[in-house]
Amino acid sequence: MRILTPRPLTRTAFARFGDVIECDGAQHFPINGGTTERYHDLANINMREGGRAIVSIFRGQPRSYPLAISMMERHPLGSQAFVPMQRTPYLIVVAESDLVTRRPAALHAFIARGDQGVNYAAGTWHHPLLALNVVSDFLVIDRRGEGRNCDEAMLDEPVQLTLG
Amino acid sequence: MRILTPRPLTRTAFARFGDVIECDGAQHFPINGGTTERYHDLANINMREGGRAIVSIFRGQPRSYPLAISMMERHPLGSQAFVPMQRTPYLIVVAESDLVTRRPAALHAFIARGDQGVNYAAGTWHHPLLALNVVSDFLVIDRRGEGRNCDEAMLDEPVQLTLG
Repeated sequence: MRILTPRPLTRTAFARFGDVIECDGAQHFPINGGTTERYHDLANINMREGGRAIVSIFRGQPRSYPLAISMMERHPLGSQAFVPMQRTPYLIVVAESDLVTRRPAALHAFIARGDQGVNYAAGTWHHPLLALNVVSDFLVIDRRGEGRNCDEAMLDEPVQLTLG
Repeated sequence: MRILTPRPLTRTAFARFGDVIECDGAQHFPINGGTTERYHDLANINMREGGRAIVSIFRGQPRSYPLAISMMERHPLGSQAFVPMQRTPYLIVVAESDLVTRRPAALHAFIARGDQGVNYAAGTWHHPLLALNVVSDFLVIDRRGEGRNCDEAMLDEPVQLTLG
């Protein structure tokens, strides 16, 4: 089975898949009389076709690695953001979309620091939540509304996600 | 100066001011083949008059307590949610709105556990971010758009927020 090893999550490396929600490198300014710094507007929250943004908490069980990755999903009608609530690192697997079939093509894996969230752009193929070492809570911002907003695709060839 | 002492944050006690974003007592269901539990749609994200929801990080410096509370603010055009990113407890001061003048009336203080976020309903008088012991990061979901969305009011009589 092909091996997939995560690399560090950065805005540049992740740009084609969505946003990294983090303070490093973000525009910011003081508010509240200088007692607070606002790192401003860090993600493109995009709720299509009349949907609205909702807030949920996902409590993820840690997975065992190496892990066989055989399925990807996408939400065509809305972005989906994940932000760790306990500074716990986690893994991300995303895929480019085949230009002809629109199915998952080349896979990319990232390891996120505990102070980094991600926001998958609408329609981005991604693996469901991959907690790393401990039960991990994430604040999730996604879409509620009419329409079919979850596609799943089985990979032609599963890959093995290893921690390297 | 009048003394204000925080009580524990609960959904019931906070209901008139907005939502408590927490797993305890929330509707939930398994997703992702049972590896994740989804605590679903925990806050009324309400962006009025064509505004859109944006995501920012507020990095709050710890305050010194007792703290004189002399000013409150409100955002008439949108809700504003704060969720701790490091499981750090923090303080909340909100005010009822005077039925005639619409200015801040009776004050209420709460201490939030590190696994509790809050979402101020649009128009709710609240004090700016009150970090407790350490520099604390919060994910914030509020409104970007046209219109005047921040009112400030000085209190007729400042109160002293103590930790009890």
